[in-house]
Amino acid sequence: MSEVGQDEARDKVTSDASTGKELLPGNAVIAQSGGPTNVINQTLVGAIKQMVRSKEINAMFGARHGISGLLEEDFIDLRAESPRLLDKIARTPSAALGSVRMKPTKEDCEKLFEVCRKHDVRYFFYIGGNDSAETAYIVATQAAEADYDMRVYHIPKTIDNDLRETDHCPGYGSAARFVALALIGDQLDNRALKGIKIDVVMGRHAGFLTAASVLGQQRSDDGPHLVYVPERPFSVDKFVGDVKQVYDELGRCVVVVSEGIQDENGKPVSETISESGEVDAYGNPQLSGSSALGDYLARTVNERLGKDLRVRADTFGYLQRCFPEVVSRVDATEAMEVGKHAVRAAVQDEQPNGSVIIKRAGTSKTYMASYGLTSLENVAKGTRSMPDEFINAESNGVTEAFRDYALPLVGRLPRYRWFKTERGS
Amino acid sequence: MSEVGQDEARDKVTSDASTGKELLPGNAVIAQSGGPTNVINQTLVGAIKQMVRSKEINAMFGARHGISGLLEEDFIDLRAESPRLLDKIARTPSAALGSVRMKPTKEDCEKLFEVCRKHDVRYFFYIGGNDSAETAYIVATQAAEADYDMRVYHIPKTIDNDLRETDHCPGYGSAARFVALALIGDQLDNRALKGIKIDVVMGRHAGFLTAASVLGQQRSDDGPHLVYVPERPFSVDKFVGDVKQVYDELGRCVVVVSEGIQDENGKPVSETISESGEVDAYGNPQLSGSSALGDYLARTVNERLGKDLRVRADTFGYLQRCFPEVVSRVDATEAMEVGKHAVRAAVQDEQPNGSVIIKRAGTSKTYMASYGLTSLENVAKGTRSMPDEFINAESNGVTEAFRDYALPLVGRLPRYRWFKTERGS
Repeated sequence: MSEVGQDEARDKVTSDASTGKELLPGNAVIAQSGGPTNVINQTLVGAIKQMVRSKEINAMFGARHGISGLLEEDFIDLRAESPRLLDKIARTPSAALGSVRMKPTKEDCEKLFEVCRKHDVRYFFYIGGNDSAETAYIVATQAAEADYDMRVYHIPKTIDNDLRETDHCPGYGSAARFVALALIGDQLDNRALKGIKIDVVMGRHAGFLTAASVLGQQRSDDGPHLVYVPERPFSVDKFVGDVKQVYDELGRCVVVVSEGIQDENGKPVSETISESGEVDAYGNPQLSGSSALGDYLARTVNERLGKDLRVRADTFGYLQRCFPEVVSRVDATEAMEVGKHAVRAAVQDEQPNGSVIIKRAGTSKTYMASYGLTSLENVAKGTRSMPDEFINAESNGVTEAFRDYALPLVGRLPRYRWFKTERGS
Repeated sequence: MSEVGQDEARDKVTSDASTGKELLPGNAVIAQSGGPTNVINQTLVGAIKQMVRSKEINAMFGARHGISGLLEEDFIDLRAESPRLLDKIARTPSAALGSVRMKPTKEDCEKLFEVCRKHDVRYFFYIGGNDSAETAYIVATQAAEADYDMRVYHIPKTIDNDLRETDHCPGYGSAARFVALALIGDQLDNRALKGIKIDVVMGRHAGFLTAASVLGQQRSDDGPHLVYVPERPFSVDKFVGDVKQVYDELGRCVVVVSEGIQDENGKPVSETISESGEVDAYGNPQLSGSSALGDYLARTVNERLGKDLRVRADTFGYLQRCFPEVVSRVDATEAMEVGKHAVRAAVQDEQPNGSVIIKRAGTSKTYMASYGLTSLENVAKGTRSMPDEFINAESNGVTEAFRDYALPLVGRLPRYRWFKTERGS
């Protein structure tokens, strides 16, 4: 561990102008956790920029690979980086500090406070999703129990958009943009070569990302024609019937499903596939979480509607979350702002711990965001699903209300043109 | 069938200024065939623009869905579209006329000449890959046999870059750009969360697209660390050994394989998987051509190197070929130029039939393209593979010669920045 920034520590008590409350100056640690996104570094850099302006914060440590870097004292001295470099890092996809998926135990927390004491860390910022909020909540709770004075803030990030309390999550807009763009191209591809196309989009519990597949539609017969999300029970029979109906009408069909679609008993379809006796070359059960779901749905369509039908499946996988240059401007801006807000909230001490939330104002066209705090507990416990009014009555598509919600977050999508004299598809 | 453009037909014989040869004026048909790309409409519009300038060509029919639209007289009147609209259509992904995969029989050809006679079609332009060149070759050969005077031109298009004679194929640069961008993001993702990542890229016989995965590398330890193409025998043992070596060194590993990798007997690995007894929920053999290859390689790594390793696989699938806004400028320009060149060659009658080729001049940095013609037969028969000098001696990566070849076609890729003080990965 480097002794980075230690010499900059100032042993004084400052007074916050806005509240008049006394704040202990100290050092800060910031880290990134969970699946990386295209804008998670905007959040990191937003926080760093705000910390630089905050007299309460002295040394700024970037812990590598989340909480594991904190435990191992694997730090980067964030004050050593130039503003110009930081602006560039903000635009770099994935997590510049590295990431981790790790839930700290009580022992981890004890070790953690030891490290924090050693480096006089009084501010802890954790950028991530619901699991990361839980980590922050555990750290905050354990800190209180251990009587270690440290303010703990969770800063939201997730492409799934499934965090509670916040209107939406930084990272979602850009990943949703990827999905919307992918479907613009994919449905044009399907228009050219016809057949049935099935796309599997990330989202184990929430369908927000899958739903974004419709956002680039221009013409009434543009795909995706069917959208299935985990919020509604998935029936293979209903699915095949829906596909048949669209195909009979248009001579083609584009379907998007969430990886987490579940049957009426709440059991993920991918689990059922893995238990169905499907085995690999070594006799092991086929794993879920692979591309098995898309392949299974494609085979099912072929078996039930005809072997000769051209049916293809793609599983978008990790391409969705860090694809260079596919960034929503609104998402990038907000990602930076939540980082700044966390630090502002911390040094104003308006709430000792918390999770940053985004609040929405205006309509789809006059959209505006503001920022606030909620308790860590509210975000750590459970996730959010798509509200009913975003899903159609048939449970195979999304509504105008969803489009109004999502379009401002995704940004302007390209619009294409075709021959005027084109007949049908 | 509409009688579109018929009234515009001029019954006269014109003389070509450059050759002095007499050319029969007549109508033209153009169509698109095979897998769509992001720039195939540039080619279509390039040809249309040149036809508009050519006094030898009267009516211009766009046949929908390739040769099947010609047989069904499913035509679009291309003279009815404004230049402004055409410019926009050029930028639309996928095939604006629709596409098809169809090899014409002798009977099809007879029907085809009947339609062509009826509409006085004397110029036939077919945009597509090697199969489409074969279609053009069959049509040209049958036309000669039937004593039907029609000039037949194949205009190259394929993301696989596997056509003979031409230096490279329109469509490749943009698809290669997608793959290069995807890997920039994916290897940053892998840097953040570590583990082993396997990406499967299109390419049944040629590895050009897979090889493009390296083009965005900035740092010496940037992935992909291993690249396997169909041109070299693929050994699972060697693959696992290679992965282990990289993983032991870096603590992570990104691998890219072509979907068409073959064992030492030339048998595709995906076929071996499908014969290996892997069955689906209904007892049917697992199909190849799905995501089975990536999932199989991932399972194999887990089985041989450890169940606890984080191993993930993505199959890029159809996302590679029509993703909006992922377009190489050089590719778009050249795609338009090959369309123009085909029409110029046709009306100059320098060769009655032919396939357009791109010739390269200059170095990687001073790259320039020019255009020419080769015989249809040369392109129709067989495909091209990566030359030996593009593949490393270990058969698990590509060379500087390949980068020099591909970079000008793909265009400038984004470069990202990281913390100066970052230690290792």
